[in-house]
Amino acid sequence: MVLERVPTGIPGFDELCEGGLLRDRTYLVSGTSGSGKTIFAMQYIVNGIQMFNEPGIFVATEERPQHLREHFSVFGWDLEKLEDENMLAIVDATSTKIGLPSDEKYIDVRPFDTRSLIDQMITIQDEIGARRAALDSTTSIGFSIQDPAKFRVELLKISTTMEILGLTSLFTCEIVDSSGISRFGVENFVTEGTIVLYYTRSENVRVRSLEIFKMRGSNHSKKIHPFEITDKGIVVHSREEVYSEI
Amino acid sequence: MVLERVPTGIPGFDELCEGGLLRDRTYLVSGTSGSGKTIFAMQYIVNGIQMFNEPGIFVATEERPQHLREHFSVFGWDLEKLEDENMLAIVDATSTKIGLPSDEKYIDVRPFDTRSLIDQMITIQDEIGARRAALDSTTSIGFSIQDPAKFRVELLKISTTMEILGLTSLFTCEIVDSSGISRFGVENFVTEGTIVLYYTRSENVRVRSLEIFKMRGSNHSKKIHPFEITDKGIVVHSREEVYSEI
Amino acid sequence: MVLERVPTGIPGFDELCEGGLLRDRTYLVSGTSGSGKTIFAMQYIVNGIQMFNEPGIFVATEERPQHLREHFSVFGWDLEKLEDENMLAIVDATSTKIGLPSDEKYIDVRPFDTRSLIDQMITIQDEIGARRAALDSTTSIGFSIQDPAKFRVELLKISTTMEILGLTSLFTCEIVDSSGISRFGVENFVTEGTIVLYYTRSENVRVRSLEIFKMRGSNHSKKIHPFEITDKGIVVHSREEVYSEI
Amino acid sequence: MVLERVPTGIPGFDELCEGGLLRDRTYLVSGTSGSGKTIFAMQYIVNGIQMFNEPGIFVATEERPQHLREHFSVFGWDLEKLEDENMLAIVDATSTKIGLPSDEKYIDVRPFDTRSLIDQMITIQDEIGARRAALDSTTSIGFSIQDPAKFRVELLKISTTMEILGLTSLFTCEIVDSSGISRFGVENFVTEGTIVLYYTRSENVRVRSLEIFKMRGSNHSKKIHPFEITDKGIVVHSREEVYSEI
Amino acid sequence: MVLERVPTGIPGFDELCEGGLLRDRTYLVSGTSGSGKTIFAMQYIVNGIQMFNEPGIFVATEERPQHLREHFSVFGWDLEKLEDENMLAIVDATSTKIGLPSDEKYIDVRPFDTRSLIDQMITIQDEIGARRAALDSTTSIGFSIQDPAKFRVELLKISTTMEILGLTSLFTCEIVDSSGISRFGVENFVTEGTIVLYYTRSENVRVRSLEIFKMRGSNHSKKIHPFEITDKGIVVHSREEVYSEI
Amino acid sequence: MVLERVPTGIPGFDELCEGGLLRDRTYLVSGTSGSGKTIFAMQYIVNGIQMFNEPGIFVATEERPQHLREHFSVFGWDLEKLEDENMLAIVDATSTKIGLPSDEKYIDVRPFDTRSLIDQMITIQDEIGARRAALDSTTSIGFSIQDPAKFRVELLKISTTMEILGLTSLFTCEIVDSSGISRFGVENFVTEGTIVLYYTRSENVRVRSLEIFKMRGSNHSKKIHPFEITDKGIVVHSREEVYSEI
Ligand SMILES: Nc1ncnc2c1ncn2[C@@H]1O[C@H](COP(=O)(O)OP(=O)(O)O)[C@@H](O)[C@H]1O
Ligand SMILES: Nc1ncnc2c1ncn2[C@@H]1O[C@H](COP(=O)(O)OP(=O)(O)O)[C@@H](O)[C@H]1O
Ligand SMILES: Nc1ncnc2c1ncn2[C@@H]1O[C@H](COP(=O)(O)OP(=O)(O)O)[C@@H](O)[C@H]1O
Ligand SMILES: Nc1ncnc2c1ncn2[C@@H]1O[C@H](COP(=O)(O)OP(=O)(O)O)[C@@H](O)[C@H]1O
Ligand SMILES: Nc1ncnc2c1ncn2[C@@H]1O[C@H](COP(=O)(O)OP(=O)(O)O)[C@@H](O)[C@H]1O
Ligand SMILES: Nc1ncnc2c1ncn2[C@@H]1O[C@H](COP(=O)(O)OP(=O)(O)O)[C@@H](O)[C@H]1O
Ligand SMILES: [Mg+2]
Ligand SMILES: [Mg+2]
Ligand SMILES: [Mg+2]
Ligand SMILES: [Mg+2]
Ligand SMILES: [Mg+2]
Ligand SMILES: [Mg+2]
Repeated sequence: MVLERVPTGIPGFDELCEGGLLRDRTYLVSGTSGSGKTIFAMQYIVNGIQMFNEPGIFVATEERPQHLREHFSVFGWDLEKLEDENMLAIVDATSTKIGLPSDEKYIDVRPFDTRSLIDQMITIQDEIGARRAALDSTTSIGFSIQDPAKFRVELLKISTTMEILGLTSLFTCEIVDSSGISRFGVENFVTEGTIVLYYTRSENVRVRSLEIFKMRGSNHSKKIHPFEITDKGIVVHSREEVYSEI
Repeated sequence: MVLERVPTGIPGFDELCEGGLLRDRTYLVSGTSGSGKTIFAMQYIVNGIQMFNEPGIFVATEERPQHLREHFSVFGWDLEKLEDENMLAIVDATSTKIGLPSDEKYIDVRPFDTRSLIDQMITIQDEIGARRAALDSTTSIGFSIQDPAKFRVELLKISTTMEILGLTSLFTCEIVDSSGISRFGVENFVTEGTIVLYYTRSENVRVRSLEIFKMRGSNHSKKIHPFEITDKGIVVHSREEVYSEI
Repeated sequence: MVLERVPTGIPGFDELCEGGLLRDRTYLVSGTSGSGKTIFAMQYIVNGIQMFNEPGIFVATEERPQHLREHFSVFGWDLEKLEDENMLAIVDATSTKIGLPSDEKYIDVRPFDTRSLIDQMITIQDEIGARRAALDSTTSIGFSIQDPAKFRVELLKISTTMEILGLTSLFTCEIVDSSGISRFGVENFVTEGTIVLYYTRSENVRVRSLEIFKMRGSNHSKKIHPFEITDKGIVVHSREEVYSEI
Repeated sequence: MVLERVPTGIPGFDELCEGGLLRDRTYLVSGTSGSGKTIFAMQYIVNGIQMFNEPGIFVATEERPQHLREHFSVFGWDLEKLEDENMLAIVDATSTKIGLPSDEKYIDVRPFDTRSLIDQMITIQDEIGARRAALDSTTSIGFSIQDPAKFRVELLKISTTMEILGLTSLFTCEIVDSSGISRFGVENFVTEGTIVLYYTRSENVRVRSLEIFKMRGSNHSKKIHPFEITDKGIVVHSREEVYSEI
Repeated sequence: MVLERVPTGIPGFDELCEGGLLRDRTYLVSGTSGSGKTIFAMQYIVNGIQMFNEPGIFVATEERPQHLREHFSVFGWDLEKLEDENMLAIVDATSTKIGLPSDEKYIDVRPFDTRSLIDQMITIQDEIGARRAALDSTTSIGFSIQDPAKFRVELLKISTTMEILGLTSLFTCEIVDSSGISRFGVENFVTEGTIVLYYTRSENVRVRSLEIFKMRGSNHSKKIHPFEITDKGIVVHSREEVYSEI
Repeated sequence: MVLERVPTGIPGFDELCEGGLLRDRTYLVSGTSGSGKTIFAMQYIVNGIQMFNEPGIFVATEERPQHLREHFSVFGWDLEKLEDENMLAIVDATSTKIGLPSDEKYIDVRPFDTRSLIDQMITIQDEIGARRAALDSTTSIGFSIQDPAKFRVELLKISTTMEILGLTSLFTCEIVDSSGISRFGVENFVTEGTIVLYYTRSENVRVRSLEIFKMRGSNHSKKIHPFEITDKGIVVHSREEVYSEI
């Protein structure tokens, strides 16, 4: 039995893990604030559409969709166009939380409710038949649920639904420092693997690097690889390694 | 699509981030006590008025407006004059908290109430049509709300209102040491970027430096740059770098 | 009196502990996320069946049985076949937790209930007469019980039941870092020994190693031995030692 | 506008901060147990009376006034005489707390009550027209209030009252180690600056030193200066610096 | 007055403390999991019977008596025989806790109840007239009581009862790392001394060592001595010392 | 005004602090378990009686009086004789706490009650007219009160009563490690000074040393001095210093 791989299309990444993620699994992308998690997640979705013809869903709990569209235009990604083509759905899980109206097509009710998010994903699936999804980020959901045990169960519901809907997904997770791999200590329990993004100082300069920390069923790289955010998005230097202290 | 930049006018700073902040976003200015957060925030507002003709709002939750006026006179900034010209509004969110009368024009009721602050900002907008705002500091609001999850939601309401009112804003945040980038671990979740001010010891002398830790949609400097507080306010040495341990 | 040993069959491991585990005892396998606990536990069960003709039970609280079957096929282990032969029972203690149907033969009800798990194990024993068991992992049970003192009592019930049913068992435990040997500080109180799996950085590469930290009644190796995950599963280098900092 | 300075009269100190404290502000004097906070505060008050003819109020929450009088006699300060001359008022905020009678003129009721302390200060002002005050220490008030958010508000009331009464004040704060600058993390939020007293080991000997950590509106020294407790009280060596690790 | 000493009979130990423990006192044996606490405690009891003709009581809260009998047979100790001779009583304080039947003669009811344990010890004293006792371990009692202050009082009751019954006793305590000397911070308050067992890494090998940390009324060794677990039990190398970092 | 000094009579100690403690004050003696606090406190009381003819009270909350008498006989101190001569009163604040009868003359009721302890001290004062007292230790009182703020108030009541009764006192405090100077962070707030006893490792041997950390109104030694526990009790080497890391 050979397991099916879903390539991220992020330059340099897939060759670190036997060609990509496992089909129908959920993975955690952890990193401190500003480490590149949102870019990584969106690039995975955009590549899915543009390179592999797989529609994608992006659930945004932190950045308002309009900001996402603006920020990602600098990488040459025209999200609005992809949305118009019914290849991309951005779920606005931010605006209504604060009692303000949202112009978005897909909005998530207030306060956070797993059931309604799941219903909405099912509806979207009917419309666009997505194969990939990203939830950015689990951390703000964690803040609203607070109890780690309950948070774990809710994430488990979401990840299982995604798997059942035939989605290969990324969950982002904002950690406070690089000493742990998840914020609330439970996010890695509902996912099949963990990718950690580092943004560390080397003398007076910040350096970005990345590690596949865990990936079930995969003989992945065990090294830490530098990456850059270029004007085309993330580029991983898979042949290079980071030797300095993380 | 080219994103509009709002220059801070702080010498040496804007060239670290493609010309300034993104229009209609909110940024976090974090630092330990005495690191220069209040000066940074006020200089951004004053420069907006004097250099770019953009009126500004300064919400003071810690220092009484009269003290602000006195302290900043040493930098040659005549806040009273700017207020008289209807270019600057200082919201006194300190005085009434302690049951004492305030002579200020704009006062915020007691205890802290997001709704009333938002109403007041809408009123002020009618009067002066501000383009910039500063909230100094989020930390005392955090103390009065206490629950981090609730604090995050209230900050989210304020920042979203500011963005909707067309304000490009700075939120200050007082951290206890430089190991984290926010006090309650949630402030960076409602902002589009984080600027960290350091005040660290190098042998027996304190040195000031600054880092753009995160700025969405921006190819900012990844270095740590020294700055000084001169008799004209903050001056960033954008060409120099700090090599020592932070 | 010579104590009976149960060999794990994991290459290189049994010679570290006088030939294997003690019959009818429960042992803890601790390690951080991705350290190889699930592989270790399943290899112990599979070897029991294939090398020693001892049927086994695998209680899965984290990975869905179907994923386990897929992931372990890469090591050439055909779990489905072993299940069909009535030599292996996989208890699905994951699916129903989230309100979704399970196709599995052995499912555990929701929410976690020690009594029902114990009943199910008794039923399975009637059917397959197992001699080995693995519970992967105790940690998700700990999350749902939360109170460490109560968690300890529930684990004690399970381990004692297993011993009474004539099962020699492994409990896995996911720790956050390698400074402790259990997650909730109580798991090692219900087991007769602790095996710790390390996944640590040596310069820019992760290295796997293993230590028998405690094994009652056994004169075990006191060293730390490197191991690898090969295409046949775990191989311990019992003659080699790890000198670097753990 | 030139801001008025209030000299402490402590040898070597005022030259570190443009001549002294700012008139009508409150400052924090932080330090570990035994670092010299009480001596610093009392010397500021005594100097005010003897060198600048400014009457002073000393609120003692920890040491009984009679002990203060005895301890400070070794520095040649005759507190009783200054009290008789109506230049000094010592508020006994310790005795009644424990249900014992106090012979003191100014006593604070039990348990700690901000309102009554404020009333008392207003009364004292009528009698002696003080210009300086010291509250030694905020920490025991913090213990009785416990909730940091509430403690902050109470301190804010006291400091604002003092400023309105025309008092330039010092608040002492006992920290546990020198890693933070306040005990409950809020004391520095109600004050205009922080002076930290260090009592650290250099080999087998304790050394005293001092730093002006923050002083709003002031271009203060950024160095750490050694000081001694002599038979005339504190003497700061403003020209010397401490290079060793704090 | 010369204080009466109770020799443990553990090779090399008694010479470290003027000949042994003080008669009718209780001592704490602390150590991490696997450090040898249970072996130390049982060897003290077995030696009491075989070398000094003093009957002993062993209260087992963690390991089932049957396991104890099996594990200790490897050291040549025939516990069953000693029990038959009415020289040893093993109190099973584990089995009933989890609702399973116990075949043991002396069982302790569920949940843990100090009063009933005390009653049982009084009964046993009638039957065997013990002079030594061991409670292995206090830590599981701590888990069931939880509140440290209450735990301290219960331990105090047990230790005082033991002293009044004329028993010289050892209490074991499982600590998480070697930075403290007790688990809940109170165990050392009910005992007259503390013996710490270390199980530390020296390069890639674990080394065992032991320190008499405190022994009231005794001029004990202040060094750390290595020990081994041989096929005859613990042997302390009283003339050797451990120099490396613990 | 020259402050009256109360010599401890402990060889080498008084010369470190201008001749002794200040009359009618309370001092804290802090140290880890086994550091020598109880011996220090009892030696101070015994010396008071034998060298300065000052009767003393010893409040024992941890060690039973009979044990104290036995342990201290090795230093040649005949406590029973001193009690018979009405020069020493030992208050048994341990026995009754656990529901067991006490033969002691002075017993403290259960549970700990400040009022009753104070009453008892007043009664004892009538009988023996003590000038010195020791409370060994504050820590077990802290455990029973638990709330640090309440604990502080109770200690304040006891210390103030002692001062009013004309007693110069020592309070002992058991700290967990040498990084703080008190256990609950409040004990030093009710005392006039702190003496810290260290019991630290230098290579493989424990070394005892002592520091006067704070002593109000005193120009004390600022060094760390080694001490020994000899067969006559504590002897401080006041001319020697400890250079190694504490
Ligand atoms: N055009 C760009 N060129 C280079 N770096 C960029 C660009 N746009 C954004 N970045 C970097 O990406 C960071 C934001 O990445 P993001 O994925 O939002 O982080 P996270 O989601 O982990 O907080 C910014 O702080 C900036 O450093
Ligand atoms: N005129 C000045 N010249 C130089 N430094 C000054 C001047 N005025 C204030 N400062 C410095 O600025 C600090 C206060 O900065 P501020 O912005 O209030 O800090 P924060 O808000 O981060 O606590 C003072 O502690 C002082 O070190
Ligand atoms: N075929 C393989 N070859 C090499 N390594 C593998 C293979 N399959 C899985 N792994 C490694 O095993 C890890 C998962 O091990 P697992 O036992 O699930 O960890 P744990 O249960 O401790 O979290 C993966 O992260 C990967 O590093
Ligand atoms: N006459 C003196 N000479 C030298 N040092 C003294 C003298 N009197 C007191 N001290 C020192 O001052 C310390 C007390 O200072 P204090 O201001 O009470 O400390 P704090 O209030 O910070 O706890 C004493 O511990 C002692 O070291
Ligand atoms: N026959 C033996 N030879 C050598 N070491 C042994 C033997 N039996 C047990 N041990 C060691 O003793 C340890 C268990 O000691 P134990 O007293 O139960 O520890 P603790 O009670 O401190 O957790 C085992 O982990 C093993 O390392
Ligand atoms: N006769 C003695 N000779 C030397 N040291 C002794 C003697 N008696 C007791 N000790 C030491 O004193 C320690 C107990 O001191 P103690 O004052 O009870 O400590 P604490 O009260 O700080 O816990 C013992 O652990 C032992 O090291
Ligand atoms: Mg993001
Ligand atoms: Mg400020
Ligand atoms: Mg696993
Ligand atoms: Mg003081
Ligand atoms: Mg044990
Ligand atoms: Mg003691």
